[in-house]
Amino acid sequence: MSLSRKLLAEGLGTTLLLAVVIGSGIMAERLAGGSVAIALLANTLATVGGLYILIEVFGPVSGAHFNPAVSAVMAWRGELPVAALAPYIAVQLVGAMLGAWLAHAMFDMSILQRSTQVRSGTGQWIAEGVATFGLLLVILRAPASRAPAMVAAYIGAAYWFTASTSFANPAAVFGRMFSDSFAGIAPGSAPGFVVAELMGAAVAVGVHRLLSQPAAAPSVVTKETQRV
Amino acid sequence: MSLSRKLLAEGLGTTLLLAVVIGSGIMAERLAGGSVAIALLANTLATVGGLYILIEVFGPVSGAHFNPAVSAVMAWRGELPVAALAPYIAVQLVGAMLGAWLAHAMFDMSILQRSTQVRSGTGQWIAEGVATFGLLLVILRAPASRAPAMVAAYIGAAYWFTASTSFANPAAVFGRMFSDSFAGIAPGSAPGFVVAELMGAAVAVGVHRLLSQPAAAPSVVTKETQRV
Amino acid sequence: MSLSRKLLAEGLGTTLLLAVVIGSGIMAERLAGGSVAIALLANTLATVGGLYILIEVFGPVSGAHFNPAVSAVMAWRGELPVAALAPYIAVQLVGAMLGAWLAHAMFDMSILQRSTQVRSGTGQWIAEGVATFGLLLVILRAPASRAPAMVAAYIGAAYWFTASTSFANPAAVFGRMFSDSFAGIAPGSAPGFVVAELMGAAVAVGVHRLLSQPAAAPSVVTKETQRV
Amino acid sequence: MSLSRKLLAEGLGTTLLLAVVIGSGIMAERLAGGSVAIALLANTLATVGGLYILIEVFGPVSGAHFNPAVSAVMAWRGELPVAALAPYIAVQLVGAMLGAWLAHAMFDMSILQRSTQVRSGTGQWIAEGVATFGLLLVILRAPASRAPAMVAAYIGAAYWFTASTSFANPAAVFGRMFSDSFAGIAPGSAPGFVVAELMGAAVAVGVHRLLSQPAAAPSVVTKETQRV
Repeated sequence: MSLSRKLLAEGLGTTLLLAVVIGSGIMAERLAGGSVAIALLANTLATVGGLYILIEVFGPVSGAHFNPAVSAVMAWRGELPVAALAPYIAVQLVGAMLGAWLAHAMFDMSILQRSTQVRSGTGQWIAEGVATFGLLLVILRAPASRAPAMVAAYIGAAYWFTASTSFANPAAVFGRMFSDSFAGIAPGSAPGFVVAELMGAAVAVGVHRLLSQPAAAPSVVTKETQRV
Repeated sequence: MSLSRKLLAEGLGTTLLLAVVIGSGIMAERLAGGSVAIALLANTLATVGGLYILIEVFGPVSGAHFNPAVSAVMAWRGELPVAALAPYIAVQLVGAMLGAWLAHAMFDMSILQRSTQVRSGTGQWIAEGVATFGLLLVILRAPASRAPAMVAAYIGAAYWFTASTSFANPAAVFGRMFSDSFAGIAPGSAPGFVVAELMGAAVAVGVHRLLSQPAAAPSVVTKETQRV
Repeated sequence: MSLSRKLLAEGLGTTLLLAVVIGSGIMAERLAGGSVAIALLANTLATVGGLYILIEVFGPVSGAHFNPAVSAVMAWRGELPVAALAPYIAVQLVGAMLGAWLAHAMFDMSILQRSTQVRSGTGQWIAEGVATFGLLLVILRAPASRAPAMVAAYIGAAYWFTASTSFANPAAVFGRMFSDSFAGIAPGSAPGFVVAELMGAAVAVGVHRLLSQPAAAPSVVTKETQRV
Repeated sequence: MSLSRKLLAEGLGTTLLLAVVIGSGIMAERLAGGSVAIALLANTLATVGGLYILIEVFGPVSGAHFNPAVSAVMAWRGELPVAALAPYIAVQLVGAMLGAWLAHAMFDMSILQRSTQVRSGTGQWIAEGVATFGLLLVILRAPASRAPAMVAAYIGAAYWFTASTSFANPAAVFGRMFSDSFAGIAPGSAPGFVVAELMGAAVAVGVHRLLSQPAAAPSVVTKETQRV
């Protein structure tokens, strides 16, 4: 019963997240008249605002992962029961697909689509690994009260500094396959993205451990940690 | 006496909100030279900033609803006396109209206008329902201290991810009827928007209840709610 | 001695504020290639960021008014000693002029300039009154900890929703007279702006009092003030 | 051991910072189709978001300087052990170069590049001095909890109000020399920038002292410090 509430939160949250990402991409592309930079700017700002409130709203219920890579890391760290991992991922994937469909319904487009946008190559995969590495590092190290703003700010930056526009989320990859629009990704490009994302997440777990391990000796450098 | 202060806050706040929405739309359209995407970006940023401070400023006095759908939900939940509902809605509607007129006065336009912008169709109505559903969900679940930022961030995202640019507010619909500018809506399109908004708000109340109901059994999944 | 520190803060802060406003206007105009909307967007974002940190940095020293209308209201309310008012205004005016000169020096322009940009007419004056009314209302009602963000967000919105792009500050008017660039104002247009600003500030003081006066009877509407 | 964790944080943080700055510059230039203003807007927003989260993430470990000028000031103030200064600067410089290379790898560009972008002249040097002065003033006076947001907001403003687009960081100058892209700087222009930055930082230390010195007499002006 409690789990079902959590699954409702994860599923609904992921639906809305993909509706925000894909819907704002459609709106931006329609209005931008060919200027991809302006379209991506609008897509970025909508994603930042939407992601921020979705984490705030659903975080207290389910943790607001919306992302199988995040759920897997949480399960691995013992912060999500292993038995909950598969259901979490299932509702995230279904939610992502429903989010694409919801966006299409709002914009009077065919509901069922398949993206034709190829996103592939070494640069894209490095970018997707870096994007997910950064996302997980933020999630693992953020103080709980600032996590929603930090995750949103990070994704906003990552839309621009990674060559892949930072999907950083296997559920987002899955959902975007179902939309032949600005934010889409061709199904054939999906496996490369997902592999890169999982590798980036794993590296983040390792780096987080390195940064956190207790000092073997008393700190030589202390005071500057009080100031930025 | 206390109620009159609250009504002053609701009325003045709604006036300023519509002046921000319509005024920034006029400015953006004038300066953007035909690029609708840039005009909507500017309109979005002005609305986000304005909505944020209006909720901060008037929230402690009246709750800063500025929105009959919000006031109705609050009355239904017992958080606004039923006797105050009609006066709240009345000053919101009057304030919205005055806000349109104030924008026109600032931009040296005819004060009295009627929008000719048709906004209609299934996609628009779904979008408007989704927009208001999201707004109410944010309002019902936001911690009080973060509500102003969350509502503003949500509306900023919703301007882009919903096909209707997210009016999400029957008073905003009413006020925008009086402006034949970027942010306007033809009177004939208003009823469809308002019905969709009220349906979206009702769904939000139901989903909020589902997400909040106490677990029947001890939680299976606990730790991850501490982390995002 | 203490007053001299405060005057240093007010003067330096106003210098930097005008350097931000005028400098970002010059940069934006140079890069935007004729798109006034994009130039004003960049000018807005720079002003919002700059104003936010200037209030955070100098607020604890001097109150971070940077604005004779704000200092006058504070003196009238007894929150600034009357004897400090004239020195405050003097350093604000000098600082504003120095800020214009600093911007010119950074952009390799003639230091001494005079704006030729006429800003006049009923709409502009109403807009400037509304802009200053809103600014003072925000300042008078903001909780201290959120005031820097609120003032910055407000000015960001007001750049767009008021027809005058919201100077809202007699010292800003003064400083901008010395720059024949994007953000300038012709000296002949200055008196109209300043009069409108002072009237807007006075109305804000009155409205603040109306919103704050203690209720004559127990509140009829109470619970909704806990929620937004 | 503790120092090595701090150096890991400084090095990784500076790598990611330069990857954000240079990577978003490449993306923005590619998509903006010749509109430098739009490219710089995107570059700015990505930098603001990225810098914010990097300071939040690495601040508790190393202080999140990412900047030799900041480390030097901290060492001078006794907030960083003098013995740690050289290692800090070394990892910042190496990290900055690696960040450029990471950006190139993500965007399928030649890894090894040298910028040809000349940035020189009195205006540029004044701008760079002002930019670093402002950055250090923010860092020295920011309350710890708001420092990440304040530094990010400041740099966002400084990208636009300084004629140099505000490098404000000798490590950033170093890293950008290795990228012949939007954010690059020709090696021959680097010394002028670094000298200007160090002078700006020194002035900030002096002004900070003036603003902070205890009053010789009881304060004449007190109440307004409670309000903005």
